[in-house]
Amino acid sequence: MSAASPHAPPIVLTTDYGHGSPYVGALKGAILAINPAAVIVDLTHGIPPQNIAVGAWTLADHVEAFPPGAIHVVVVDPGVGSSRRAIFAEIGAWRFVAPDNGLLDRLARRWPILTIRELTEPRWWRESVSHTFHGRDIFAPVAAHLSLGVEPDRLGPPLATLIELAWPEVIVVPGKIQGAVRSVDSFGNLITDISAEALRDVPTDESVRIECDEHETLGIYKTYSDQPEMTLMALIGSSGFLELSIVGDSAAIMLGVQPGTKVTVRW
Amino acid sequence: MSAASPHAPPIVLTTDYGHGSPYVGALKGAILAINPAAVIVDLTHGIPPQNIAVGAWTLADHVEAFPPGAIHVVVVDPGVGSSRRAIFAEIGAWRFVAPDNGLLDRLARRWPILTIRELTEPRWWRESVSHTFHGRDIFAPVAAHLSLGVEPDRLGPPLATLIELAWPEVIVVPGKIQGAVRSVDSFGNLITDISAEALRDVPTDESVRIECDEHETLGIYKTYSDQPEMTLMALIGSSGFLELSIVGDSAAIMLGVQPGTKVTVRW
Amino acid sequence: MSAASPHAPPIVLTTDYGHGSPYVGALKGAILAINPAAVIVDLTHGIPPQNIAVGAWTLADHVEAFPPGAIHVVVVDPGVGSSRRAIFAEIGAWRFVAPDNGLLDRLARRWPILTIRELTEPRWWRESVSHTFHGRDIFAPVAAHLSLGVEPDRLGPPLATLIELAWPEVIVVPGKIQGAVRSVDSFGNLITDISAEALRDVPTDESVRIECDEHETLGIYKTYSDQPEMTLMALIGSSGFLELSIVGDSAAIMLGVQPGTKVTVRW
Repeated sequence: MSAASPHAPPIVLTTDYGHGSPYVGALKGAILAINPAAVIVDLTHGIPPQNIAVGAWTLADHVEAFPPGAIHVVVVDPGVGSSRRAIFAEIGAWRFVAPDNGLLDRLARRWPILTIRELTEPRWWRESVSHTFHGRDIFAPVAAHLSLGVEPDRLGPPLATLIELAWPEVIVVPGKIQGAVRSVDSFGNLITDISAEALRDVPTDESVRIECDEHETLGIYKTYSDQPEMTLMALIGSSGFLELSIVGDSAAIMLGVQPGTKVTVRW
Repeated sequence: MSAASPHAPPIVLTTDYGHGSPYVGALKGAILAINPAAVIVDLTHGIPPQNIAVGAWTLADHVEAFPPGAIHVVVVDPGVGSSRRAIFAEIGAWRFVAPDNGLLDRLARRWPILTIRELTEPRWWRESVSHTFHGRDIFAPVAAHLSLGVEPDRLGPPLATLIELAWPEVIVVPGKIQGAVRSVDSFGNLITDISAEALRDVPTDESVRIECDEHETLGIYKTYSDQPEMTLMALIGSSGFLELSIVGDSAAIMLGVQPGTKVTVRW
Repeated sequence: MSAASPHAPPIVLTTDYGHGSPYVGALKGAILAINPAAVIVDLTHGIPPQNIAVGAWTLADHVEAFPPGAIHVVVVDPGVGSSRRAIFAEIGAWRFVAPDNGLLDRLARRWPILTIRELTEPRWWRESVSHTFHGRDIFAPVAAHLSLGVEPDRLGPPLATLIELAWPEVIVVPGKIQGAVRSVDSFGNLITDISAEALRDVPTDESVRIECDEHETLGIYKTYSDQPEMTLMALIGSSGFLELSIVGDSAAIMLGVQPGTKVTVRW
C-alpha cells in the first residue's frame, strides 16, 4: 500500500479560523495541491479566536476518536510571524503539526511524547511564505508531505521539550474536589477539568453535591435522560470529564456560566 | 469493485451537534478508524438541538440528492442512554442508522420501508460505549462497517415498525388548504408542509391568496426573480413544498415568523 | 490515470448557502451521484447572502491555494431562474462553473480568461431542474461530469465575454492612495482593495499614515505580533492586500467598520 493510497491516515484540521472561513478552504487547497489523494477531515474550526487553552482541551478530548497515525494540523496561533517555533510532534498514537505555544500540552499530559522536531526545512513549505498565514504556507504543506510518506527527521532538528501552559490546579482533598468549567460544548453543556479518574472513589448518589457559582445539583448521573427536562444535572461526559447539563436546554445560557467558573464537588 | 473502493457509497451525516462542533469531527474519526477509505459528507449539523421534527423534514427534503445506497447517519437523540432503540433501516433507495425516535418518519411516509433492524450487536460498535455519545460509539461505527460491506442482518434482529411522530395535519377543502411553516432555511425562506402535489389543482395566478399570520401575498411564482426586491412572494421550493420568501431578504426575520405558524392558501 | 481516480482535481465549493446548510449537503450529494470518487472541498459557504462582490473577492483571494485544474463551483445567484446565463470558464490555471453575474470578475482582472462556454446542454444536468436550486440541478452536476473528463466544448456554445461588475476605483496619486474596506475576515480583520502592488513604492515606516473613518494608524507592519495587544495596525495580509487589524481582537467590531468604508494611505 503506497502512502498516497486512500488508505493513508487522514489529515485532521483543528483551528480558530471560524466555521466555514475561506482560510479553512485555503488550508485544504494547500494540502490537495501536494497530495491530491489526501483524506482531510475537520475536527473543528470553532476554537475561540486565539484561545490556546480551549484548543488544547478540545484536541485532547477528541483525539482518541481518530485512527493511529492520523496527522493533526492544529492552528491557534496568536504569535504567527514572531519567533515562536513551528513543530512536528508524535504524541501517543498520533502525529501533530502546530505552533509551539502550548496547544499540545493537554495531549502531552496524557500520552507519551515520542518525537518533537522543529519545522525549519523550507523545502516542505509553500514556495512563498506569508507573515500571517502559516496554516496555509507551513503547517498544511508539511502535513501533506507527511501523508505522502516524508520522514519526520527530514522536517528539521529534534527538540527536547514542548512549551507548557500553566493550567488552573484541580484540588483534591478528602470530601471535596475543586476544579473549573474549562469549555462549553455546542449544546451548552459545561465541561469541567475534573476527570472521571479524580472522581473514582466519589459516591454518585445524592450524597454528592456539585456546586457551580450559586447553582448546585445532587448526584452524578449516567446520561441526560436520567433526569426530567430543564433539570440541572451532573454526569461524566463522553470525553471522561465531569459535565454540568440542563436537560433539553443550554446550561451555559440558563446559568450564565463562562469557562473559568469554579466547580466544587462535595461528599 | 470492493466495498472499500472510493466508489463505495458515501456516508452522509445529519445531526444537531452544531456547525463545526468537534463532536462532528469525532464522528468522522470513528468512521475513518474503521474504514479509512470511507467517503464522508455532511448533509447538515444545523438541526436545532433535539428537534426531531426538523431533522425528519430536512432528511426527507434532501435525501434524493444522494446516490442510491448512500448510508445516512442521523443523530438527533434527546433519549440517548435511555431505552430508546438504535436502528438500521432501508427506506427507498437509501440506508439509515439512527435512534428510533421518529427521525425517519417523514421518509417512511414518502418511500417504502424495506428493512428495519435493531442495533444490538456490540461487535460493530466502539469497544467502550459512553452513555451520552452514541453517534461516535454506535451509529458511526455501524455505518463504517456497512460501508465495508457488512450485511444488515448481522447488526441485530428485525423490527416490524418504526416510531412515528404526530404531525400537524394539512387540511385540504374546496377553495382552501391549511398547513404550517415547518422549517426555515439559511436564506430565511419559510418552508411549509403544503406539498406541490396538494397544490396540483390550485391556480397559480393572482386569484390564489397565501396568508401567514397577518401577512398575505397573491399568486404562486416559479422563482425569486419573478418579483421585485423586498416583495413577499410564494413559490414551490426545490424540495417540492410551498415556500414563502422575501426577495433579497429573510422572510423569517422580516415577518417575525417561526416554525409552527399557520399558512393558508385560498382560491 | 483515469479522470475518476482519487488523483483527479478536486471540486471546490463556494456559495452563500450558509455554513452547514443542507443545501450544501445536497450539492455534494448531486456530485457524488455522478462521480462517487469525486474529491469535494469547501472554500466557504459564508458569502453574505446574494453578495456577488464579496463572493468575487473571496474567490480571487484564495484560488491560488488550489491545485491547477481544480473545478470551482461558485454559487451566489440572486438571478436564479431568470434569464441570467449559467457558464463554464477557464481562468488562469483553474476551471469554474457559475452563474454569469460578475462572480468571476475579480479573477478575470488578475488571470487570463482562456475559455467561456454557456451551459445549455441539459444532458449534463439533473434530470429534473428546479426553478430555484441550480446549484444542485445544474452547476454541481456539470462539475461532476467535468471531473469525469467531459470536455468543456460539450457543455454548450462559446461566449466572448463575462459579465463585469462596477468596482469602486482605487485612487493612486503622489503621496496618497484611497481605497475601501472590501471584506471582513473571520477574525474581524478589515481587508481593503489596496494591493501590495499599489503599495510597492510606499514607505512602511511610521512616515506612512493609514486612515479609516475617524481612526488612524502609522506604519505598515509584517505580522500581528509586531504590535502589542489591542493596537490598531496595518499590514499586508495573506492574500496580498492592505489589511487593518486590532491585535488580539476584532477590528470590525471594535471600530464599528463595515465593507465600503473608505481607507486612505498618506505618506
